[in-house]
Amino acid sequence: MESDNPPLRIGLMGFGCVGQGFYDIVQRQPELGLAVARIAVKSPTKPRTLPAARFSFRADELLADPGLDLLVEVIDDPAEAFRLVGAALRQGRRVVTANKAMLARHLPELVQLQAQFGGALLYEAAVCGSIPVIRTLDGYFSHEPLRSVSGIFNGSSNYVLTRMGEEGSDYGPALAEAQAQGFAETDPALDMGAFDPCSKAVILAAHAYGVFLDPDEVLNLGIEGIGAADIAWAARRGQKIKVVAGVYRLPDGRVTALVTPQLLGPASPLFAVEREFNGVLIEAAYAGTQFLRGRGAGGHPTGSAVLADVLAVQRGVRYGYAKRRQAPETLLTQGLTADFYLRHAEAHTLRAALERLDGAAEITREENEQGAVAIGVIALARLHQHRDWLRAAGVFVARLGEVRAAVPTGRAAAVAVAL
Amino acid sequence: MESDNPPLRIGLMGFGCVGQGFYDIVQRQPELGLAVARIAVKSPTKPRTLPAARFSFRADELLADPGLDLLVEVIDDPAEAFRLVGAALRQGRRVVTANKAMLARHLPELVQLQAQFGGALLYEAAVCGSIPVIRTLDGYFSHEPLRSVSGIFNGSSNYVLTRMGEEGSDYGPALAEAQAQGFAETDPALDMGAFDPCSKAVILAAHAYGVFLDPDEVLNLGIEGIGAADIAWAARRGQKIKVVAGVYRLPDGRVTALVTPQLLGPASPLFAVEREFNGVLIEAAYAGTQFLRGRGAGGHPTGSAVLADVLAVQRGVRYGYAKRRQAPETLLTQGLTADFYLRHAEAHTLRAALERLDGAAEITREENEQGAVAIGVIALARLHQHRDWLRAAGVFVARLGEVRAAVPTGRAAAVAVAL
Repeated sequence: MESDNPPLRIGLMGFGCVGQGFYDIVQRQPELGLAVARIAVKSPTKPRTLPAARFSFRADELLADPGLDLLVEVIDDPAEAFRLVGAALRQGRRVVTANKAMLARHLPELVQLQAQFGGALLYEAAVCGSIPVIRTLDGYFSHEPLRSVSGIFNGSSNYVLTRMGEEGSDYGPALAEAQAQGFAETDPALDMGAFDPCSKAVILAAHAYGVFLDPDEVLNLGIEGIGAADIAWAARRGQKIKVVAGVYRLPDGRVTALVTPQLLGPASPLFAVEREFNGVLIEAAYAGTQFLRGRGAGGHPTGSAVLADVLAVQRGVRYGYAKRRQAPETLLTQGLTADFYLRHAEAHTLRAALERLDGAAEITREENEQGAVAIGVIALARLHQHRDWLRAAGVFVARLGEVRAAVPTGRAAAVAVAL
Repeated sequence: MESDNPPLRIGLMGFGCVGQGFYDIVQRQPELGLAVARIAVKSPTKPRTLPAARFSFRADELLADPGLDLLVEVIDDPAEAFRLVGAALRQGRRVVTANKAMLARHLPELVQLQAQFGGALLYEAAVCGSIPVIRTLDGYFSHEPLRSVSGIFNGSSNYVLTRMGEEGSDYGPALAEAQAQGFAETDPALDMGAFDPCSKAVILAAHAYGVFLDPDEVLNLGIEGIGAADIAWAARRGQKIKVVAGVYRLPDGRVTALVTPQLLGPASPLFAVEREFNGVLIEAAYAGTQFLRGRGAGGHPTGSAVLADVLAVQRGVRYGYAKRRQAPETLLTQGLTADFYLRHAEAHTLRAALERLDGAAEITREENEQGAVAIGVIALARLHQHRDWLRAAGVFVARLGEVRAAVPTGRAAAVAVAL
């Protein structure tokens, strides 16, 4: 691309799945005019696909190298990533990162550092791997009032759910398969506990609505408690269970976010998003409904998104965060309810859960095979309050329908809102 | 957006469906800091939604007005659009257009004028209405080797096909309904004859592969000859008929393009793209398969895409046409074949068609109700050569499968290529 100019010298921090994918794509396309000049990794002893001489074992050496034109941060550790990216931005550097957990927690500060020191920070690969959702929200829908941005943002839990549906297999073997395929984070709790899609929803909220959410305040329910019985229960209704993450504008104008397993029928475009694929549904006031689907994980797809950001930074692209100028209020769980499905192998554990949740759920059946199932209206605030208990107890919780704003005078008179 | 600055003064040329949609969205969002300062229309007598004093009846007055910061061209007439956009670019102006027929025919010259005079030309709304496909190809996949970019690029013919499938109704009433809904071009032949999706494929080829194709050389077959019998024939195989336009890289590295009705099963993401929706399938070497779906027609969706371009031009965005630096050779029809389905009410007309096409097709059945049907291998070059005759004779032609490169020594030994 810049064949007449010296190549853009890239400092690559991290050489895991994404780092190697990015490196490989760059190596195969010398015409792009990019050079991965230095690579920093943590462990000097881990076997790698390149000779040891190719690596630095102190990322700070890259920070201190004025010969690097751009830094790519794709390490595993969010705290260390924040330290490195923050330091780079304080130097006014151009940085591309894929670290969603770090971004979700530190976005306000990073955006401020970018503005203060004149650097640049792009992070398309942090959300939905290969799908260009951040640049679409930030650059294309910057003017569009959005009703919602939701979808399947986690490829590894979706892979597990797909395999369970196809094979009738249980959670454990399906998770092991996802890990063997390289689709899972180092810590599976991030994927299966829905912390990863929660981070992504928080990042998208900044571009879709101009709000910076605290990921700890967003309700995220995972699939660690799921079993073949839940998949079968959904299948009998012609549905599938998917982990749906989303940010939504409520009828009163406030913005909410949540991540839960959800039962979906074939009318939803997300129904057909299988395996490591991700899907994003954008409901826009004027443009109408947009749907994007692509690979949400894997070295090459995510590395390709990193490369697209590198080339964009080189062209001078910056995120505009245009919606921040009129950012709405947020309402994460308080006063919101939805219909939920709950299941546990032991009826007494399910009863204990329902007592904590104080929901209108009733235990609809008790069977040895699948345990006890309850269905009813539950307040999101209660689920948020007890989510650690639910996770520890192994209660599986899935949303059956839309989130509603509860009428203050009583749960029974809950009013449906268009999510 | 620019609340502290004077508004960006826009000159709007054209006030049809798209022009009004754009105007309406801008009016509803004063915070964007945009002002439609002048509007030019052709007819002084046509009834309009704004007072006559709001209009100029000579677009050249807008060209001559140095107070306009940006021109939006959304008129109906490709020749006049080319004159206006070309003149504006010669002034170094910033221009947004939605005129696909004009772009498909004049893209090389317009790109050259933009470079020569330092202006800007964006045209997201020209392809697939609300779907951000051009900026995705140009800005996000600029580095990605693409295997194909294909899809449903014409909302009105897709609307007709959907209604025929739902209602079992015939072509005429379904077309009338599409026109009543405002989804059709002024000249229905552009939509139904597949000239409109052909223009769009030509535009996408410039961004996906860096090649400028001559739209007249691209094989485009439409649905003017379709009947309820064809829809029923596909339905018996569990398939639908969709007008699929695409640009494809052949195994030898060359790029081809074609637009034909095609029979698709539910495994294709395009199967579920209904009514005025458009869908784009991008097969990328590293990012994998991407699918985008959104509204392909309508004043607000298309007007929203125009507005996104206006804001992008304001931020300094230009298309990069990065693939032009290594543009491949092209091969539009010569030496390519595919399996086709042909039908005509009269067996003798179908026989006459097969004689012209010199295909391996055989007349498989003759029934009074649906006429004669033939299925077989046909050379694309023959279809291209006789497309006007086929159209005039009312022969309906649909592709049944992938395009293949014919082995020179004989049609029977055709080799499948991955399209």
